[in-house]
Amino acid sequence: MSLSTIYEPIREDLAEAEDRLRLICEVDFPWLSKLLEHSPKNGDKRIRAALVLLSGKSHNCDLSYLLPAAVAIEVLHIAILVHDYAIDNSLVRRDCSTINKIWGGDKAIVFGDYLLAKAEELVSDTRNLRVIRLSAQTFMTIASRELSQAFSAFNLEQTRQQYLERIPGKTASLFSLATESGAILSQAPEELVKALKEYGYALGIAFQIVDDILDFTSDGTEMGKPIGSALAQGTLTLPAMLLLERYPGNNPLRRVFQNEGDRQENIKLTIELVRNSPVIEECYEVASDYCARACRNLDLLPVSASRRSLEELTNYVVARMEQLKQLW
Amino acid sequence: MSLSTIYEPIREDLAEAEDRLRLICEVDFPWLSKLLEHSPKNGDKRIRAALVLLSGKSHNCDLSYLLPAAVAIEVLHIAILVHDYAIDNSLVRRDCSTINKIWGGDKAIVFGDYLLAKAEELVSDTRNLRVIRLSAQTFMTIASRELSQAFSAFNLEQTRQQYLERIPGKTASLFSLATESGAILSQAPEELVKALKEYGYALGIAFQIVDDILDFTSDGTEMGKPIGSALAQGTLTLPAMLLLERYPGNNPLRRVFQNEGDRQENIKLTIELVRNSPVIEECYEVASDYCARACRNLDLLPVSASRRSLEELTNYVVARMEQLKQLW
Repeated sequence: MSLSTIYEPIREDLAEAEDRLRLICEVDFPWLSKLLEHSPKNGDKRIRAALVLLSGKSHNCDLSYLLPAAVAIEVLHIAILVHDYAIDNSLVRRDCSTINKIWGGDKAIVFGDYLLAKAEELVSDTRNLRVIRLSAQTFMTIASRELSQAFSAFNLEQTRQQYLERIPGKTASLFSLATESGAILSQAPEELVKALKEYGYALGIAFQIVDDILDFTSDGTEMGKPIGSALAQGTLTLPAMLLLERYPGNNPLRRVFQNEGDRQENIKLTIELVRNSPVIEECYEVASDYCARACRNLDLLPVSASRRSLEELTNYVVARMEQLKQLW
Repeated sequence: MSLSTIYEPIREDLAEAEDRLRLICEVDFPWLSKLLEHSPKNGDKRIRAALVLLSGKSHNCDLSYLLPAAVAIEVLHIAILVHDYAIDNSLVRRDCSTINKIWGGDKAIVFGDYLLAKAEELVSDTRNLRVIRLSAQTFMTIASRELSQAFSAFNLEQTRQQYLERIPGKTASLFSLATESGAILSQAPEELVKALKEYGYALGIAFQIVDDILDFTSDGTEMGKPIGSALAQGTLTLPAMLLLERYPGNNPLRRVFQNEGDRQENIKLTIELVRNSPVIEECYEVASDYCARACRNLDLLPVSASRRSLEELTNYVVARMEQLKQLW
């Protein structure tokens, strides 16, 4: 099932959210407009906004509060990406020049700050103190996990548990913020809030694992960035971690992290080794388990078109993996 | 009158705010603790927190909401400084090594983000949607003015009006956020909220002008950073702007901005020219006018120890200028 079919129950609301995102660009300051035009907005699946809307619509939703939350989370996501670019010093992502390249990293920092403030203003439009607080705490978690990742870069002594603890900082935190906020804003009972939060969390981990796999198996166009970029930054993702568990001896990954020999050559060898090992298959299994776990959390929800869409989203991730396996 | 005498009506509350700031450092993650220890907290006058408390105490204050606002604004201020360091690539400020130097600019970006989120969480503890929204909007203003400044760096075609419009982005925005939030949280009537907001705004502009003067006249120890640093970054502050108005011809400032000749020599010549011209005196007059304007806004407030302290703060700025004039 395609994403547009899955999004059918929220088609109009998502279009409204997209319009509001566009409106943010139409500001008085021409230089800010220019930056906003170059922010990563095109071709985005808007999955975070969709998760807010689908979760809200699974119960009694009030769109006047749900929509600002949906837009806020997309703006927060873009703000975090903009700061990521400034940190990585990325010059190209998703085939378009980034803010970094055009205006320099200093402006990317301040522009990210502007977007963070905008997200905070939007979330205040929900007029829900619990959602406002949750949004702030989620961003704190994301930043503290990013710091943890920065401090453990090029460190081989990380366990699979540490990796799984860090993932929420990257994707699952925002996914669970989206689903939990949607549930809270629709006055769902606490058990549904908890179930939808856990659904978002598990789905986010599955998404992240697929991205981490693609960093090894894609040709670079799918990801919009060069393959092996996590390796180059010294980030130990699940495929790399499983490779180390499987080949604990002297393998090229160890040499990349310990800065021994030809770096580019070792990255290339690591990618080949991962591709030709059962590690990728094992990663797919872990991601599928998370999709199944996400799905189980939906059992409590009343049957509705939105609930079916949330279920289909987990199938979408699994189907995407199957497709990738065939291509690979 | 010393700051500690001015702070007398809020001595205990400010000590409590300081304790809460310290508690933020006592977190589970040892690396985050380390960063927080190095954040610019020592020797700070905590004027933003004091403004929240004094403004709140001028009416009916509820400390359980006022204190989180006071702590939040100091954390927001620190977060902005941390990002400033990452942008300037400053290695030394206030005689202590900055996060940039110890951990690198990438970690300064994420650490600033962590503090921004912490400030957002703290401000949500006020449980006041108007204050939450005001805080987000103030940070948006600060970021957009910072961007405006970055885009107009090394541009000589800026007017005094543009300079005065940009100042709020740096200091007056946070000062007026502090006084307005204090007034809102103490349920002051709208005319008092407006008066306290304008008091904070005018006081903040006076503070900023004094800092801009010090960037030309101090020996570098007062500011905690090298003199002429605004010039080096291509920022046209009031003294520089007045110098251009007074000597529109070919002066060393013009050469700094147009990147002609020996840069360091031209910065040195500009500093000397400013010091030996009536420009500094004129800047002091502008700052004094803003102090008087701040003071006039207090007329509406009921007479109290807090109101007297707010008045004394404007005298403190003027007295500090007199002292500096004597030293200089």
